[in-house]
Amino acid sequence: MKENMPKSPTKGGVQSVEVGMVLLKALAASGGHASLNELAETVGMHPAKVHRYLVSLVQSGFVERTAHGRYDLGPYVLEFSTAYLSRLDPTTIANSMIEDMWARTKEGVILTVWGSSGTTVIRWFQSRRPISVGIRPGTTFSTLMSASGRVFLAHLTQELTRPIVEQELKALEKSSDPRAPKSWQEVEAISEETRNQGLGQVAGHSVEGVSALAAPIFDYRGELVLTLALFGFKSSFDISRDGANAKLLTDTASEISKQLGYLPGTH
Amino acid sequence: MKENMPKSPTKGGVQSVEVGMVLLKALAASGGHASLNELAETVGMHPAKVHRYLVSLVQSGFVERTAHGRYDLGPYVLEFSTAYLSRLDPTTIANSMIEDMWARTKEGVILTVWGSSGTTVIRWFQSRRPISVGIRPGTTFSTLMSASGRVFLAHLTQELTRPIVEQELKALEKSSDPRAPKSWQEVEAISEETRNQGLGQVAGHSVEGVSALAAPIFDYRGELVLTLALFGFKSSFDISRDGANAKLLTDTASEISKQLGYLPGTH
Repeated sequence: MKENMPKSPTKGGVQSVEVGMVLLKALAASGGHASLNELAETVGMHPAKVHRYLVSLVQSGFVERTAHGRYDLGPYVLEFSTAYLSRLDPTTIANSMIEDMWARTKEGVILTVWGSSGTTVIRWFQSRRPISVGIRPGTTFSTLMSASGRVFLAHLTQELTRPIVEQELKALEKSSDPRAPKSWQEVEAISEETRNQGLGQVAGHSVEGVSALAAPIFDYRGELVLTLALFGFKSSFDISRDGANAKLLTDTASEISKQLGYLPGTH
Repeated sequence: MKENMPKSPTKGGVQSVEVGMVLLKALAASGGHASLNELAETVGMHPAKVHRYLVSLVQSGFVERTAHGRYDLGPYVLEFSTAYLSRLDPTTIANSMIEDMWARTKEGVILTVWGSSGTTVIRWFQSRRPISVGIRPGTTFSTLMSASGRVFLAHLTQELTRPIVEQELKALEKSSDPRAPKSWQEVEAISEETRNQGLGQVAGHSVEGVSALAAPIFDYRGELVLTLALFGFKSSFDISRDGANAKLLTDTASEISKQLGYLPGTH
């Protein structure tokens, strides 16, 4: 931390503000309950000087003095943090990151949300290959037979997905497609497999001849807010779990989740 | 906001730090994308002076300059906010708030978590009435027949609760208690009723002659982390949904959730 302490302010800036923010970061990193002397040690400043800064940080509500003269982040930080996290917009963040992913693949990219009619396309980046599928924003996909739908099936509550899944099961009753699930037991097997794999996967199920992989995007509450899918010709699309498509997709989806404040492993 | 601008620093403080924090708060309140002039207007300072502060706040990572010369909270805020929220300890926060609730009631208070054996007591505040129940930290309650258990049943995933509930259903098979559920259908009815009421409620079910109400405590991710229960003699305990016990319990549980960063209505 010492090397972070500004010796002189950034050109055109205010040095005291920079010192104050370094102290705030040191407090955040301390995990709470740092003493004045520990903080002074960490930032390499005299305790009396650190104390003056803390007085003003306490005044702002960003810091509080706890029992036994220790310091922690203060009451305003809760409001600040929740307000900040709740205004992060998944779609905006995803859009800006998907451009980069799209540039690195020849396949098509689809972003979906869970709408009132189930899996709903909100963004579609056309494939660089001459593949034509009738997809546009607003198109809905099958929950059971599309890669994106399967991700929602696997991560949303049954309460949310049940009405749509029931309709689909009814519609699939007479289907001759051997891949179509016919019972809730089969639906649950698909859900569990998708959850275990971390990816939804279909080989030509939803649209004949089109294969797809889809990954979940979670927000800071650990809730599934979007799914990101790659799709291409069944004959040329690498659908394997350890292939380049799966890696590109997983890396991008994880990075978007991270930017939404998702902490993996805490959910 | 103007009235918040410090004219002189807090005694023994550093004025620039206080000004910097007022600017940071103004940015947080703006919802992002404030222009320099808008910010200067909000805090009642000359734009050139505001600019100097922003230079240093940008340097710290708390602020960033976005497109078209606008300002928003910066890249470090995500790390700062998620780290802060994830280190809020539900048990510590609940303990400090329950003391106050306990002082305002004659009933007993119980704090439970969902442990590997189901609903598990972690804190027990004895009743001021001469009621004696064999409860201590580590005691587990029925998921189906206790107020606390019903709250977990209503808010946790079926995946989590199912193994315990299956055991309990088996044990209740031969029960002559007409209140004991005998099927998954009855279990789901209890779960739904508890969710709709916002409170778990039992009148002498779990421990004969003891009635209880329990409320959920959620964290910033909207996850149920604790349940808080009030319990007392069946003959004297007010179990009604709009009674004083229900209100005291709901108010306390909501306040603890709020301090854990829970934003009602977003989940």
